[in-house]
Amino acid sequence: MAMHPQAVIFDIGGVLLDGTRALPGAAGVLERLRERGLPFLLLTNTTRVCQADLLARLVGAGLEVRSDQLITPASMARDWLVAEGRTPMLLIHPGLHPDFPGWTHEDAADAVVVGDAGEGFGYAALNKAFRLLMHGAPLLSLSGSRYFSEGGELFLDAGPFVRLLEAAADARALEMGKPGERFFLHASARLGVPPERVLMIGDDVESDVLGARAAGLKAMLVRTGKYRPGDEARLPPGVRVVKDVEEAVEVFLDSLVPFGEG
Amino acid sequence: MAMHPQAVIFDIGGVLLDGTRALPGAAGVLERLRERGLPFLLLTNTTRVCQADLLARLVGAGLEVRSDQLITPASMARDWLVAEGRTPMLLIHPGLHPDFPGWTHEDAADAVVVGDAGEGFGYAALNKAFRLLMHGAPLLSLSGSRYFSEGGELFLDAGPFVRLLEAAADARALEMGKPGERFFLHASARLGVPPERVLMIGDDVESDVLGARAAGLKAMLVRTGKYRPGDEARLPPGVRVVKDVEEAVEVFLDSLVPFGEG
Repeated sequence: MAMHPQAVIFDIGGVLLDGTRALPGAAGVLERLRERGLPFLLLTNTTRVCQADLLARLVGAGLEVRSDQLITPASMARDWLVAEGRTPMLLIHPGLHPDFPGWTHEDAADAVVVGDAGEGFGYAALNKAFRLLMHGAPLLSLSGSRYFSEGGELFLDAGPFVRLLEAAADARALEMGKPGERFFLHASARLGVPPERVLMIGDDVESDVLGARAAGLKAMLVRTGKYRPGDEARLPPGVRVVKDVEEAVEVFLDSLVPFGEG
Repeated sequence: MAMHPQAVIFDIGGVLLDGTRALPGAAGVLERLRERGLPFLLLTNTTRVCQADLLARLVGAGLEVRSDQLITPASMARDWLVAEGRTPMLLIHPGLHPDFPGWTHEDAADAVVVGDAGEGFGYAALNKAFRLLMHGAPLLSLSGSRYFSEGGELFLDAGPFVRLLEAAADARALEMGKPGERFFLHASARLGVPPERVLMIGDDVESDVLGARAAGLKAMLVRTGKYRPGDEARLPPGVRVVKDVEEAVEVFLDSLVPFGEG
């Protein structure tokens, strides 16, 4: 029984939120966990919305979450930079700048953070980042995504620019988002629970379920959000598929009392 | 005896030319080959000097070469595009534009050529190239070089941008330069001689000798140009190291008459 999960990580989009609206049961499950004193976190891959704005969106949708319960690639990168005492050069979306307060002296940069910088990916900026890497600066990647679609057109996302800098400087990026192992281990440490005692609840087979499992966490797939019939075939054995976040948390709570009332 | 080389490919910089000056013996060896009616070509990786300018430089140095005897990555890319009936989007150094005459309607592009475009590597241009690749356009790489140095600073070269586009579109570039097999096979075909009957004479172990050998050609290393003592250790067995291009061609000519006068 010792291996039953004791803490929960939620994906946000498609699990707790649909756009800016809470999904059915989302507010209730967070309330139940809080009442039971069970630790939980929200983990999402956004590279355009800063932590404060995302928190406001969650609260606006009726989901009670504290800022230390919300981890994004940018918030993890910031925590990493603070812990390592490094100053970043930021190749990120303008929406993320509030996540990196106080680092205005880019001339002192000794780390490179790459997100979805769009027009910020010019030749001069890439050269500057490249030279920092050649001097031993670490490369922090906020996303491995290849591209995104906007207004019916495809645009290059952060991933290919991370590959460019890796190839140029013969370096390896530290991946700050899902499905990277580092992200899940960071979240587990924040929860104060070993990874094998943490349950990840998500709607994406690759980034949520397979990512969590590769990092040693438990995982459950919900049939909301980006779930599509047939996703089951891509799941590793032992991963349960449930209707929604409400059922997921019910199963989790039941597992806490395996010899319970029934 | 049938496997003795019958044709020669010369690298240019460090073998025939030092900057704009002919190296000792360079003019003479081309003259000797011409007198004997033996086919030869010049093969170089320049991504900033167009074929016509390079030809003028060779002739100005006293080296008699015809344009069809000079192959650069850009000239090979142009020949490939003509043969395939494709219109390129050009992400190249301005110096190379004369190599791609007549393709001014970039809106009709159905191929992407990537060289050392410098400031031409903007986000909008990279997106455009990426979208073409996603529609099945081939990606032609003029260089795999990671970076170059200019005025004491490092700058990103073509290679990392090729890697970016490959990663974004999940595509593989056609490498047009040394040490790519395609380049040596193209040159052998131009000479009208099977690769195993062609001798590559160069000063660079990787791009000249190992590249040529991987494509099935013979190879010889000269002790001029970028040659450094110790390069021998990186050579495959059977590759001869000679003083300069003059000795290289003497050895080649001697091999043509293995039961000669002596």
